[in-house]
Amino acid sequence: MEYRKTKDQENYEDASQKDIESLRWTPLSVVTNSMPSSVGGSNKSSWKLKSIVTLALTLLTSSQAILIVWSKRAGKYEYSVTTANFSVEALKCALSLSALARIWKSQGVTEDNKLSTSFDEVSVYPIPAILYLIKNLLQYYIFAYVDAPAYQILKNLNIISTGVLYRIILKKKLSEIQWAAFILLCAGCTTAQLNPSSDHVLQTPLPGWVMAIVMALLSGFAGVYTEAIIKKRPSRNINVQNFWLYIFGMVFNLIAICIQDYDEVMNKGFFHGYSFITVCMIVNHALSGIAVSMVMKYADNIVKVYSTSVAMLLTAVVSVFLFGFHLSLAFFLGSTVVSISIYLHSIGKPQPQK
Amino acid sequence: MEYRKTKDQENYEDASQKDIESLRWTPLSVVTNSMPSSVGGSNKSSWKLKSIVTLALTLLTSSQAILIVWSKRAGKYEYSVTTANFSVEALKCALSLSALARIWKSQGVTEDNKLSTSFDEVSVYPIPAILYLIKNLLQYYIFAYVDAPAYQILKNLNIISTGVLYRIILKKKLSEIQWAAFILLCAGCTTAQLNPSSDHVLQTPLPGWVMAIVMALLSGFAGVYTEAIIKKRPSRNINVQNFWLYIFGMVFNLIAICIQDYDEVMNKGFFHGYSFITVCMIVNHALSGIAVSMVMKYADNIVKVYSTSVAMLLTAVVSVFLFGFHLSLAFFLGSTVVSISIYLHSIGKPQPQK
Repeated sequence: MEYRKTKDQENYEDASQKDIESLRWTPLSVVTNSMPSSVGGSNKSSWKLKSIVTLALTLLTSSQAILIVWSKRAGKYEYSVTTANFSVEALKCALSLSALARIWKSQGVTEDNKLSTSFDEVSVYPIPAILYLIKNLLQYYIFAYVDAPAYQILKNLNIISTGVLYRIILKKKLSEIQWAAFILLCAGCTTAQLNPSSDHVLQTPLPGWVMAIVMALLSGFAGVYTEAIIKKRPSRNINVQNFWLYIFGMVFNLIAICIQDYDEVMNKGFFHGYSFITVCMIVNHALSGIAVSMVMKYADNIVKVYSTSVAMLLTAVVSVFLFGFHLSLAFFLGSTVVSISIYLHSIGKPQPQK
Repeated sequence: MEYRKTKDQENYEDASQKDIESLRWTPLSVVTNSMPSSVGGSNKSSWKLKSIVTLALTLLTSSQAILIVWSKRAGKYEYSVTTANFSVEALKCALSLSALARIWKSQGVTEDNKLSTSFDEVSVYPIPAILYLIKNLLQYYIFAYVDAPAYQILKNLNIISTGVLYRIILKKKLSEIQWAAFILLCAGCTTAQLNPSSDHVLQTPLPGWVMAIVMALLSGFAGVYTEAIIKKRPSRNINVQNFWLYIFGMVFNLIAICIQDYDEVMNKGFFHGYSFITVCMIVNHALSGIAVSMVMKYADNIVKVYSTSVAMLLTAVVSVFLFGFHLSLAFFLGSTVVSISIYLHSIGKPQPQK
């Protein structure tokens, strides 16, 4: 049982519980299209907020991967993944509630920050949830066709699918240069991850490719749909949205515990096998999860993709100092291409930076 | 003795013999700056000419590499490299003369297409010649620090040095996007050439890096200087410029034959060891050499760099069909980056395409 699995599971819950009014396909694109890209509007503080949440997501994601390496080096932990996931959701819930308590104290309870919700507001969360369910199911089957390193390479297709679906579903425009930058981001990330066994991926049989593409589409679609429903009601307090997100996360993980680890938890206890590093990883995952929500609210999926890509590179660099890893020439080339991609994305904006 | 060496030698002569009026450092940049980027001006036929010579250079360069592989597969040839180089120069000279003869017949002899030249016109060729001499000398020493595959990787620094010196010496502007595209071209070409042993290049000691950078600067400088002197007198017929270029090439190679292969040529004969493939390579090198001159005259060093980069990729693709080579994932990623670089270079023009 590896903690590494937590992230995908977490994404599932991120996407599956939304405290938002009902969304129908036709009005969705219209609504999101007419919305400002960040809730705070075009002022300087919104740009600052966007930068802070993006930086936070980058640092948290990169330290996430480092904690995984660290925990692997330190030996296997016999904790249950489902209880760890539940703990992550519970911690996020607690953090959202404490933030809300502060807001209620200073601003009072309003229509936008009240905790109570309607069926209409929460009814849309099953759509991304189903997408992630299918994607996680496919994940078991794809390993019949590709090995783990090849799967890591194929996961970079997510970058392209996110860009395409962001354009199609949210109807937001990327300039020609930004499209070029996005393809470069995908190529650069893949290059940075190249290793002598990467060429295996080219022997992937057709069903493997189809699954990889379908999985990338499902993942991209879930991400973009999450952004759409989080942004559907821009004035709604993010902590309320997060609270409902994480409450459903807790419920979902409780069911998972009951199905998968009921006996183990009953016999050995809920926190069996937890160590200091497990706690660090739970705290890190909780903060990363909140950062993802914030980026979806105040920035967008494109920023999230860039943020996690940079995190991947940061992780490799930090691993050199922490674990004595060696950086390959491919890593330097990939990093160069990713850096230029970021530069091109920023200078290639369809309208000038607000 | 490998024919492969011919190319560097040929570059040497391309750059070393110029039929151009004397150039001094201060006026050079002023003159070239005020020149149109192509001799024919901004009309459609000039653009067509530019496209044709670029396409010719790309196809000839890529078939050059294929001929090298072919000749290697067919076994070693015991011909002398110096006599082959001389033959290339002689063939180029003959081709230039026959083109000139046609022009004289149709247009008569003018100031611009007359063969006779002045000391001032030819006196500048030693500068690129000296640069190539130092570069070729350094080539022997750099192998004390890097192996042949690492050297192939380091040669991509030429791309960056050409861009930088093109900007500094010819004072021609590249837009921000074109600079980004140029760095991508270098990263993409290097990525496409990656193989499991490429990481050796990262262990290159400092003197190796210094030499590689100096060699890249010398090579870039020679290329850019050649463009400057070929374009110094735009109205001068390119065939006359080529004729003098190649006459000096013949003289230089004759000296090389006397020093290196005098005994062998005397005992075995000038064309000893020549085969059908040797003749193909000589014809190909002659045509490529003329194409390089044409690109320098009607386009520029940037176009030449893109052209030879695309040729490198084309060679790899054609080799799959001809020799059953396998393309690596790195090759696909590098090709993607190079393709986007070309796209960005074309959309990133400082002024609109004429």
